[in-house]
Amino acid sequence: MAYYETMFDQLDVTVAQMLVTDSSFRDKDFRKQLSETVRAMLKMRVIPVFNENDAISTRKAPYKDATGIFWDNDSLAALLSLELKADLLILLSDVEGLYTGPPSDPNSKLIHTYIKEKHQDEITFGEKSQLGRGGMTAKVKAAVNAAYGGIPVIITSGYDAENIAKVLRGLRVGTLFHQDAHLWAPVVNTTSRDMAVAARESSRKLQALSSEDRRKILLDIANALEANEKTIKAENDLDVVAAQEAGYEESMVARLVMKPGKISGLAASIRQLAKMEDPIGRVLKKTQVADGLILEKTSSPLGVLLIVFESRPDALVQIASLAIRSGNGLLLKGGKEARRSNAILHKVITDAIPETVGSKLIGLVTSREEIPDLLKLDDVIDLVIPRGSNKLVSQIKNSTKIPVLGHADGICHVYVDKSCKMDMAKRVVSDSKIDYPAACNAMETLLVHKDLEENGVLNELIYALQSSGVTLYGGPRASAKLNIPETQSFHHEYSSKTCTVEIVEDVHGAIDHIHQHGSAHTDCIVTEDGEVAEIFLRQVDSAAVLHNASTRFSDGFRFGLGAEVGISTSRIHARGPVGVEGLLTTRWILRGKGQVVDGDNGVVYTHKDLPVLKRKDALENGHGAMENAL
Amino acid sequence: MAYYETMFDQLDVTVAQMLVTDSSFRDKDFRKQLSETVRAMLKMRVIPVFNENDAISTRKAPYKDATGIFWDNDSLAALLSLELKADLLILLSDVEGLYTGPPSDPNSKLIHTYIKEKHQDEITFGEKSQLGRGGMTAKVKAAVNAAYGGIPVIITSGYDAENIAKVLRGLRVGTLFHQDAHLWAPVVNTTSRDMAVAARESSRKLQALSSEDRRKILLDIANALEANEKTIKAENDLDVVAAQEAGYEESMVARLVMKPGKISGLAASIRQLAKMEDPIGRVLKKTQVADGLILEKTSSPLGVLLIVFESRPDALVQIASLAIRSGNGLLLKGGKEARRSNAILHKVITDAIPETVGSKLIGLVTSREEIPDLLKLDDVIDLVIPRGSNKLVSQIKNSTKIPVLGHADGICHVYVDKSCKMDMAKRVVSDSKIDYPAACNAMETLLVHKDLEENGVLNELIYALQSSGVTLYGGPRASAKLNIPETQSFHHEYSSKTCTVEIVEDVHGAIDHIHQHGSAHTDCIVTEDGEVAEIFLRQVDSAAVLHNASTRFSDGFRFGLGAEVGISTSRIHARGPVGVEGLLTTRWILRGKGQVVDGDNGVVYTHKDLPVLKRKDALENGHGAMENAL
Repeated sequence: MAYYETMFDQLDVTVAQMLVTDSSFRDKDFRKQLSETVRAMLKMRVIPVFNENDAISTRKAPYKDATGIFWDNDSLAALLSLELKADLLILLSDVEGLYTGPPSDPNSKLIHTYIKEKHQDEITFGEKSQLGRGGMTAKVKAAVNAAYGGIPVIITSGYDAENIAKVLRGLRVGTLFHQDAHLWAPVVNTTSRDMAVAARESSRKLQALSSEDRRKILLDIANALEANEKTIKAENDLDVVAAQEAGYEESMVARLVMKPGKISGLAASIRQLAKMEDPIGRVLKKTQVADGLILEKTSSPLGVLLIVFESRPDALVQIASLAIRSGNGLLLKGGKEARRSNAILHKVITDAIPETVGSKLIGLVTSREEIPDLLKLDDVIDLVIPRGSNKLVSQIKNSTKIPVLGHADGICHVYVDKSCKMDMAKRVVSDSKIDYPAACNAMETLLVHKDLEENGVLNELIYALQSSGVTLYGGPRASAKLNIPETQSFHHEYSSKTCTVEIVEDVHGAIDHIHQHGSAHTDCIVTEDGEVAEIFLRQVDSAAVLHNASTRFSDGFRFGLGAEVGISTSRIHARGPVGVEGLLTTRWILRGKGQVVDGDNGVVYTHKDLPVLKRKDALENGHGAMENAL
Repeated sequence: MAYYETMFDQLDVTVAQMLVTDSSFRDKDFRKQLSETVRAMLKMRVIPVFNENDAISTRKAPYKDATGIFWDNDSLAALLSLELKADLLILLSDVEGLYTGPPSDPNSKLIHTYIKEKHQDEITFGEKSQLGRGGMTAKVKAAVNAAYGGIPVIITSGYDAENIAKVLRGLRVGTLFHQDAHLWAPVVNTTSRDMAVAARESSRKLQALSSEDRRKILLDIANALEANEKTIKAENDLDVVAAQEAGYEESMVARLVMKPGKISGLAASIRQLAKMEDPIGRVLKKTQVADGLILEKTSSPLGVLLIVFESRPDALVQIASLAIRSGNGLLLKGGKEARRSNAILHKVITDAIPETVGSKLIGLVTSREEIPDLLKLDDVIDLVIPRGSNKLVSQIKNSTKIPVLGHADGICHVYVDKSCKMDMAKRVVSDSKIDYPAACNAMETLLVHKDLEENGVLNELIYALQSSGVTLYGGPRASAKLNIPETQSFHHEYSSKTCTVEIVEDVHGAIDHIHQHGSAHTDCIVTEDGEVAEIFLRQVDSAAVLHNASTRFSDGFRFGLGAEVGISTSRIHARGPVGVEGLLTTRWILRGKGQVVDGDNGVVYTHKDLPVLKRKDALENGHGAMENAL
């Protein structure tokens, strides 16, 4: 008590010790007076601190006596919360809350909301299976009693001093007990983890279908979208109005609008995608391991994808159809400004998925779970694809162990060598900057060989950029020479009609500059000297390296990959512009006749490469699918 | 002061307030008495709490007066530590320590050890560039004064209550100031981050070499290993003796020993690897994007690999040669029991690397930095390959954002269908379990079609396993039928002559069982029914799926991949047995004639696949390289 007094005193709060016994509560008058006393104390801003009056208690062992009114601090707390009609009971433990198993077991998961019907059988209590340290069994029992008497309860850790404040701010901390918890289903009941597991199960059923049946699903979705165009448009209009009323930026509202013709455009691109060669089960490599032992490396879906996208609701349609084409399960987390559009599109699409696969193939995360929670599901989600701002991508990359397909920075360079043709240099440099300045593959830095200072080419390049309205900053060398302001940093993505210029010694200087300041996205050399070009192409360690061509070509459609999943600056899995193959992994299939290893004496290894027969179905037609829509 | 008193009182520690002024210190007698007083107090277990006696202080503004003896709490603390000849001064801040820039900037790095010569110019102080909140400038100045007066100083955060205890336990917390810090270089000075950055730079030089020059490095290493065999053996003997003296397990000591012939075996396998087709710069795909615009997808090194390996020093040689073959930089972190063997092998190998590349291509992490520190370097390391126990692999997977190539579990199944040939079933089942029971691709669970209960095949299979000394546990169905003990869990890797048996309804029951309890490593079906086999091969979502062949075939060498990097159960990057391609990524190379995009009106896209010419150099000979050694 002295400790409580001392601690509260630091906050200028007065506390009062309240010692009660089990038997007091048998007296109805006492209970009435207790409520009045506490109310009076709170009015005086005095905080009561309750404890059992051990010295005078007549309670006897066994203390866990169900006939008793309370038998420990947890049951006392539950009793008091009911007597005093508390707004909330917080039980502090030494673990984060109630787990599905021992908290020390990495497979145990924190239960955010306890649902009696669901959890009471799932978690077995008793002397032998007491969960957690610090008497979690007693706490759960007390919490259930209070909660089903009408008092909401949170069990959380007392080790984090912020936890009480977090609970009061309504943050998702610890385990919540509430008598209506079962009614909150499915939002609370279906966690995104459950959705991911269900998506994986459905994806396995999708994979088990024939190629033709998978194609049919896409065609059904295309038809369903067109059939529901009016409803979709109506929901989209509501989103747009709400966004305008909420005062969102015009550019954001513009991205939100599904213009007339959008639905039929999306339907057309899904039909294109349906024509594409089936990406699943393609034989990538075939080897005769031994006589009659044939090994195939085949393409196979990744599993479950998580797409986090902002604003544009058509992204949902594109991604859902790419996921189906590639046999993957999918979790979608859209922006709340497109809530209604996303919901109707998700409904139309999943309604078109046959029962043999199940509509849970594509989950729309609509619960209040935020992105950080989703990003923790690294055991059930295989790949995250963020579609949105660079900021979104880097935030996601920094906060998950799940592989992320995307790029945060696009600091692309064009190096103009001394041997360039001036007209070509002007054309490539201008297009790289001006064709679409906000694109990730737009040029941010122009590097120029020092010899071009003298012969006027540098000035011509600068003039070409400036006359197109490009603002220029210089590196130390160029800013002095050209009398332009010096840049603060070479590692900067302007995403506008602005760029940095610097003069370098030669191709090696350019390569060093790119390695030091670039983002390994796309870099280009303009030169007529084939040897210099090959040095650049071989040594620049970027996802895409170009010779005499605009950086703007570095793109899934222009590279001929068909549907573009994204552009990756990661080195693992997929790099540079990524098509459907970014949604696939491989599986090894070995067919034998009963061969065994037997200490490697069981077979004679031949390891002969066998020819892989290409499937011909609709490969050519499929190129460029989704191109219009994306 | 009341707060200090209250808080220390909780710990039954008495404190005493000591109020001093700047002017007191000008009195030599005061300073002598002060030391005696403090010593006496400490003897009585009283902790002095110092502060400036503001009420009587005559000190005037400006308070940051260099002529003063102290001018704030930090300088008072430094002064007292010197006067009292303290063992250590801990300055508590609101940030973790001294950073290279503003602590809020993600690019700022915590300086673990302040080295005056290195850092005083690197970090600029002053009114305008005061680092951190809470007066870091003042703290650093005070710390430098105390440290160079002979008192070690730590600046750390006061927000983590554990920090003081951590400092006293010698853990690496906050920023350390010590007058001898510059002498501790290079161990402290060369961080593993620096090593990773240097390895990347060297790897770029390695890539710039011709294929022939890279091959020559491998041959030089092979020769150097043989030339230094005696020295290597001597160092290895020292490790072995030390391990025996330290009482390591015999199996571990056995793995540590480099037996006679080991070095020449390693050298031979490096020469084999040198013969292999150069894996860098292979054209994987070639497309005509437009007339005169040719796109190639080429193989390219990943960048920097981190290998964490236990015990076997030959792993260092294998991995280093694979890294060189694939053009990657490498950080090696070996077990301390193989410290001397690893050091000499590392020296011999890096001495053989030409200066044009630089010996920093391969870094041996010998500092006291532990694995968790290395695993944080996700911005400079591209892939982690753990070579060791399942425990090591799962620990690493759970504690890093860097992609990990490896497998934690190998829970492999053999499903024997009703249509099997009994002899083949017995042979495949036995080999899968017995050929090498501790291998990750050994069978852990045997699933049997229910019809085989009646016709005696189940009993034959059980008898075959039991007569080979295999201990059997059953699932609920099999344990009742066969009268064997019931297994605790189907998700269990015995890694010994033990396995689980269960009876399933049919192929679909087997598939469900495998998806629910397996680890997606390697699973096999034994059946004569081609249709059932195809269902299994298509639907089982594992890295390797086999028909009528022992699970033991699931292995890089047996699959014909040549050098095996590992077996991956991740779905991203590489899956199943992984050869050198697991150390490679791709790069797009586009060669043009000045084409621009110009709103996609600049070119006419053709997107025509072009034939890829295979390089023939030594492909056949290279198969099986490193096979003997690994």
